[in-house]
Amino acid sequence: MWIDEVPLIDHHCHAVVAGDLERPDFESHLREGPRGSFDSALGLAVRRWCAPLLDLPAHADPDDYLERRAEIGWREATSRLLGATGTMRWLLDTGFGGSDPTAFAELGGGRVHEIVRLEQVAEQVIAESSSAATLFDDIERALRDRLRTAVGLKSIVAYRCGLDFPLVTTAPKSAPHLENPQLQGWLVGLGARLGAEYNLPLQFHTGFGDPDLHLRHADPLLLTEFLRTTADTGLKVILLHCWPFHRNAAYLAHAFDHVRIDIGLAIPFVGQQSSAILAETLELAPFGSVLYASDGCGLAERHYLGARLWRTGLRKLLDEWLASDAITPADADRLVTALAHRNAEHTYRFPDAA
Amino acid sequence: MWIDEVPLIDHHCHAVVAGDLERPDFESHLREGPRGSFDSALGLAVRRWCAPLLDLPAHADPDDYLERRAEIGWREATSRLLGATGTMRWLLDTGFGGSDPTAFAELGGGRVHEIVRLEQVAEQVIAESSSAATLFDDIERALRDRLRTAVGLKSIVAYRCGLDFPLVTTAPKSAPHLENPQLQGWLVGLGARLGAEYNLPLQFHTGFGDPDLHLRHADPLLLTEFLRTTADTGLKVILLHCWPFHRNAAYLAHAFDHVRIDIGLAIPFVGQQSSAILAETLELAPFGSVLYASDGCGLAERHYLGARLWRTGLRKLLDEWLASDAITPADADRLVTALAHRNAEHTYRFPDAA
Amino acid sequence: MWIDEVPLIDHHCHAVVAGDLERPDFESHLREGPRGSFDSALGLAVRRWCAPLLDLPAHADPDDYLERRAEIGWREATSRLLGATGTMRWLLDTGFGGSDPTAFAELGGGRVHEIVRLEQVAEQVIAESSSAATLFDDIERALRDRLRTAVGLKSIVAYRCGLDFPLVTTAPKSAPHLENPQLQGWLVGLGARLGAEYNLPLQFHTGFGDPDLHLRHADPLLLTEFLRTTADTGLKVILLHCWPFHRNAAYLAHAFDHVRIDIGLAIPFVGQQSSAILAETLELAPFGSVLYASDGCGLAERHYLGARLWRTGLRKLLDEWLASDAITPADADRLVTALAHRNAEHTYRFPDAA
Repeated sequence: MWIDEVPLIDHHCHAVVAGDLERPDFESHLREGPRGSFDSALGLAVRRWCAPLLDLPAHADPDDYLERRAEIGWREATSRLLGATGTMRWLLDTGFGGSDPTAFAELGGGRVHEIVRLEQVAEQVIAESSSAATLFDDIERALRDRLRTAVGLKSIVAYRCGLDFPLVTTAPKSAPHLENPQLQGWLVGLGARLGAEYNLPLQFHTGFGDPDLHLRHADPLLLTEFLRTTADTGLKVILLHCWPFHRNAAYLAHAFDHVRIDIGLAIPFVGQQSSAILAETLELAPFGSVLYASDGCGLAERHYLGARLWRTGLRKLLDEWLASDAITPADADRLVTALAHRNAEHTYRFPDAA
Repeated sequence: MWIDEVPLIDHHCHAVVAGDLERPDFESHLREGPRGSFDSALGLAVRRWCAPLLDLPAHADPDDYLERRAEIGWREATSRLLGATGTMRWLLDTGFGGSDPTAFAELGGGRVHEIVRLEQVAEQVIAESSSAATLFDDIERALRDRLRTAVGLKSIVAYRCGLDFPLVTTAPKSAPHLENPQLQGWLVGLGARLGAEYNLPLQFHTGFGDPDLHLRHADPLLLTEFLRTTADTGLKVILLHCWPFHRNAAYLAHAFDHVRIDIGLAIPFVGQQSSAILAETLELAPFGSVLYASDGCGLAERHYLGARLWRTGLRKLLDEWLASDAITPADADRLVTALAHRNAEHTYRFPDAA
Repeated sequence: MWIDEVPLIDHHCHAVVAGDLERPDFESHLREGPRGSFDSALGLAVRRWCAPLLDLPAHADPDDYLERRAEIGWREATSRLLGATGTMRWLLDTGFGGSDPTAFAELGGGRVHEIVRLEQVAEQVIAESSSAATLFDDIERALRDRLRTAVGLKSIVAYRCGLDFPLVTTAPKSAPHLENPQLQGWLVGLGARLGAEYNLPLQFHTGFGDPDLHLRHADPLLLTEFLRTTADTGLKVILLHCWPFHRNAAYLAHAFDHVRIDIGLAIPFVGQQSSAILAETLELAPFGSVLYASDGCGLAERHYLGARLWRTGLRKLLDEWLASDAITPADADRLVTALAHRNAEHTYRFPDAA
């Protein structure tokens, strides 16, 4: 098996902070909440896995780690960490945490593609638009413009009214505020329509995230009706992150042929449990429906650990399957390739691909 | 321990397709959704475990497997697979996927008993009835007729209005459509009343199933009020399948003395994870409350894997418990017997039993 | 590592039954439901771990166990079991199952502190009060009186209207019944206000419990809005028990800095699965947010197994982390100390502490 070498397509991640960070700033990126700390599964993993990439012994002290990181500079540290992921394509959500694919490509190597965030485009149009009469058309036009070069769409409606957004196809008549659930539902519907038209997958934030989220509203099962209405439209729907609802998400991938899922975001956070979460995901998810993502954000350490712990966890899982004679080495290799990049290649259209 | 030999009572399963199958038809039965495939935990398990029963090497190629299956014929393949389960009693849900216990007995060996599906009987009466005035009485009469030979009842209300159906005891006055949640609730109530009267357990589909289901409406916790109202009536309630809510179901078995649960359906699908799911179920479920089922349907491969992976998973679990000195060999044997058939013998009344 | 010796702070437990017990009475305490039995993970653990403390071989027969327990007497048995937990402080919920900290201290050794149950105080005031006009003030006065010596507050609103209680700050005008959700919400709000004022943590029952509970209403995620409104008040909120929602609870501890969690109650019940549940909890919970508790109640066996299976499970988990080089021995020691007592020392103010 070549789990440690197989090239990855990181189908959902974010940019990094361009600058050296003091310890409180660095630690704030170790948590999707207030006041992060190295005293967590993620913090242990940074010290264990990232320190050697900065020429330190494994398990380096946090202060030593940050001192060394500043010494070589954030740019060099980021380059080493992103390079060590073994990623051949990065799909960058440009709607949060920086938005320059070119700058990311210089740091990370590999090709960088853009994922357009629906809500960010709509907010921009609403902020700039002087005419309520043309606003909905303006949003659609702005999206179409962005989609000429993007490889996918993303919705963070889970952070707004939740994944049980209203299934509406006509624009609301009321004032165009993004706080309006009708507008949010219309926007997702627009994304679904354009995604089907352009053959671009539509990603949804599901599962845990920062405290703006009400986690109950981010259970992917809330998308069931939406998935039914889009099942035959040609749209592909991607459920991002999913934890702690990854079994629910796996069921949706099982029940609906146009659904893909990943467990990015969770993987870098959960340390040694990456194997268990992969196992729970693969209980019911068809092997062709599971993608790789780091959801790395802010710190390249998170991109790197997304890859490192995915490889470590998948290797542990497959070692057990092989030891139990549940799978052949050849099938295990095929599964690794599918999860690492082949499924993504079947899901997205890359402009430079054959 | 005699996990590999202990006879099973498969207290919930379905008939098989009577005919040889082309690959797409066969694969469609490897998924509770559209377009199944061998690229799944279930597909791997078919190749690993079923191929040797058809005289092929383990992990045979899917095409080789299907060619060989056609060569010996579906009837011979089914006989071998059902026979290899080691099942002494099959409780056949005759409301879906074929309805002839005698035909099944010829294929499977062992005794076959019938589980009557409430909704199927009601639908039949509604379709045939000319008098709305007597319809509710007609449904009750038809059920009573069927219960003379059946060993249990089943409800698929989870697929209709969900497990939070209205708790009504009188028949609705409105038109008798099975889409009416009041009628559905009344029908479950009728089943509960007859089950208590005849001492026949009432099974509920809970947890995952095909895409007609809204999984959120199939969480067994939604039955809490129903379980309170039936706790002292003499009725036994059985929660089928349960995944991914098997911990919730285990809690209900812990909280209510008249509840039994199984994790059929999940077991054949989840491959190597059968051990983990058994472990999660046995965290809180009293050992006397857990039954065995395959929920096999359409393909005898699913019946066989229900048994094979249950045995494999339980053995792995008990090996760990024994290695940790958490249980004695004698107690482990007793637990195996209870889960395999003794709990079912205490739950159902079999006409031929002493 | 010193997992077997590290002193514990059991930050939530109850008194024991003062008397020798017949088998049905004893078994009734092995289940949070009707008719408990030794045929459960908890029953196996009693025989495995508690029997040697009563001079019996491990895995003693239940009848032998109870005979020996009666022979030495409940008082001696309780002393041995509580003593063997290695607990230096017990935080006793005096609102249920006995209320005398002094008596408990004589049996258990170590220091005993009181947790005051909001609903119990309110019920007492309502029962004794003759004046509806002053009732809300009377409740507040009674609570303030109790808080002079207590180290924390507790709410069982999960058992009443559920964790999605109304967020009200003014007392309801209607009749003061504890069945009134407005009153329940007001009472929690009062507890939150007093907790912030006195720097006393507010505990919530969450997750599984006895059948009075509707488990769906005990999902800690239902507290999200309450946690947002209390995030900056200085209040510390503690989510007790949490199973099967421990991943949800871990997310809340991750998202909110003022949240602490434990998995007491679950640990003694789940036997060999204590390691898995600890692992799931530590996926996302900051290491500084997880406390130890047994939630022992009625039988000292439950207090002892809370400690024994916590130590066994944590050791298994850390052995795996160490074997995978995911943590250093020094960091593992620090983690053990934090979970065993240091986090509790940072959460509670003990009157006798420096």
